[in-house]
Amino acid sequence: MVKVVLLGAGNLAYHLTHHMLNSTTIQLIQVYNRSIEKIEYLKNDVSITNNLNQLKEADIYIICVSDAVISELSSHLNFPTKLVVHTSGATSVNDLKSNSEKGVLYFPQSFSKDKKIDFNTLPVCIESTSKNGFSLLKNFSKEFSKNTYLINSDQRKTIHLAAVFVNNFVNHLFYNAEQICNKQAIPFEILQPLIMETVTKLEKISVYDAQTGPAKRNDTNTINNHKALLTNTQLEIYTLLTKSIQETYGKKL
Amino acid sequence: MVKVVLLGAGNLAYHLTHHMLNSTTIQLIQVYNRSIEKIEYLKNDVSITNNLNQLKEADIYIICVSDAVISELSSHLNFPTKLVVHTSGATSVNDLKSNSEKGVLYFPQSFSKDKKIDFNTLPVCIESTSKNGFSLLKNFSKEFSKNTYLINSDQRKTIHLAAVFVNNFVNHLFYNAEQICNKQAIPFEILQPLIMETVTKLEKISVYDAQTGPAKRNDTNTINNHKALLTNTQLEIYTLLTKSIQETYGKKL
Repeated sequence: MVKVVLLGAGNLAYHLTHHMLNSTTIQLIQVYNRSIEKIEYLKNDVSITNNLNQLKEADIYIICVSDAVISELSSHLNFPTKLVVHTSGATSVNDLKSNSEKGVLYFPQSFSKDKKIDFNTLPVCIESTSKNGFSLLKNFSKEFSKNTYLINSDQRKTIHLAAVFVNNFVNHLFYNAEQICNKQAIPFEILQPLIMETVTKLEKISVYDAQTGPAKRNDTNTINNHKALLTNTQLEIYTLLTKSIQETYGKKL
Repeated sequence: MVKVVLLGAGNLAYHLTHHMLNSTTIQLIQVYNRSIEKIEYLKNDVSITNNLNQLKEADIYIICVSDAVISELSSHLNFPTKLVVHTSGATSVNDLKSNSEKGVLYFPQSFSKDKKIDFNTLPVCIESTSKNGFSLLKNFSKEFSKNTYLINSDQRKTIHLAAVFVNNFVNHLFYNAEQICNKQAIPFEILQPLIMETVTKLEKISVYDAQTGPAKRNDTNTINNHKALLTNTQLEIYTLLTKSIQETYGKKL
């Protein structure tokens, strides 16, 4: 059974901890966090510590902390024959400063503590700097998901960037739509079926073919009517995305 | 049983036609289209015509054509005691030029011919210029959906605008994410679970609270790394949406 020490207590750390505590093939033997209070609720299930000098010996050390502190934290890990991985989309594997085998275990997903995650259905991206580490990580990742992707650091940064578009930016468009609705006392829920359709449509057709709307069909009249209802940043967003859609489809007509 | 004549042959007309042909409470008695070829496949199920002078007498005439031709087409409809409705999000009810009761039946949804629609789960927005028309339309809309909203022309234009944000613009962000992935030979499907999470999350928390990412947490390092990977319009989109997220959350911190 693979022995694991997990470092961190954020949203991803929370879900990984509980997934591993329920696993029959992974043995989570310790959870580390700088402030012990955040992991004290785990003390009946697993050894906890806030002291890097008291880390137990494991096969894999999973670093689940903010990007900015990965290098510093990893520099304290001295386990030459063991594997240390981080879980960050935006951080190179070479930012790990541990004396160890090194790797990355990245889930391109957004984690909230109050929303259950089924790791089985999630893609997982793995990378390692050594054959040995890679082989260990590959077997380990299979315990999480059937969808393992071999992804290097450049590719992972690209996935992280694309994730900003489909998650952060999309959510911000939802927010703007809600603000627009609020002004006319329209409940945002009225758009829920359309939002779901926007996503499920992609199971059937490509994103390129799925595009519709006034920008694509160059409906200047509707575009101008829309613009007259917007001010400031919303108008900037409308204008830029309309231009971008027109550039995308104009050149291929 | 309500008698209906439908005018048009686009995607929405297609779905409305088939929904009404299967209804036990609505009697679709005729379909009109300027070019008869597009509706000829219906001739065994319903009367078809391309001649406005041969429209049958019905309770409701549903105009399902491009926004630009609604006024002209409706001006040919002379049914003083009957109800004529259009189905456009961006068009005022007063753009109907028929000699009749007037109204609007608007579904804030994106329709594709090859994707089945369950009208029961769709919201429907109704408006009428007369009490009589409104009462008829209200009963009629119940045959389509349990979620009927009374929406005036200004509100409907606002819904249409918000729909551009959550559907057209969101799809364009998906397209950009796919283009970004393609450059590094990353399959777009890897982002599918994240896209689904972005949407289903809203069942639990507000769009305002659902926002995450480098823009919200002012992670300048990641933002600059991302920008270095983008060119032209994608960089403009990234910069503007990042600025907009920072404005949204900065002022409330």
